[in-house]
Amino acid sequence: MVKFIALYKKPANTAEFDKRYFDEHLPLANKIPGLKRCEVSHIVGSPMGESEYYLMAELYFENMDALKAGMGSPEGKAAGKDVMMFAKDIVTFMFAEEKVPAHSK
Amino acid sequence: MVKFIALYKKPANTAEFDKRYFDEHLPLANKIPGLKRCEVSHIVGSPMGESEYYLMAELYFENMDALKAGMGSPEGKAAGKDVMMFAKDIVTFMFAEEKVPAHSK
Repeated sequence: MVKFIALYKKPANTAEFDKRYFDEHLPLANKIPGLKRCEVSHIVGSPMGESEYYLMAELYFENMDALKAGMGSPEGKAAGKDVMMFAKDIVTFMFAEEKVPAHSK
Repeated sequence: MVKFIALYKKPANTAEFDKRYFDEHLPLANKIPGLKRCEVSHIVGSPMGESEYYLMAELYFENMDALKAGMGSPEGKAAGKDVMMFAKDIVTFMFAEEKVPAHSK
């Protein structure tokens, strides 16, 4: 599996950000063709105390071709355009390839 | 579920880093008590081209108490001490709480 990661630094107003993110942006992201799984986490701290980061979204796809096709689709472009409207300055995107897959103990 | 995230920027020598990470560090991390799942991904790029990041590890625990107990255990401390020996300057740690859990389409 591969994933598209969006890592957000702490926004000025977290309540406003959450409302925008969960009510409007996430539903758009969930429409992206080929999306297998979506995981969204709040960053709540670090071993040293506060974290500069606030939220991470991971969009899983079968492989890199499926990821790029999904992000290049009309739905992917709509989600990309949307994120630029409320998080342009605080978001970092990454493409990732799983090396160690789901490991249960 | 909650997770402990270790996000690494690109090391000077990626082959050397990988050998150290996968052969020595990851086996230590996998010994941490309470660890439910471990996911390790290589960051292979971004929509804008290269990424400044290189690798992300996500260690899943049942809840924040289990995460903190695991990281504070002798095995957790050994893994923490180890990472400081080869990645002190390039690693960022985060505690994260899943908001949107495994979502299948």
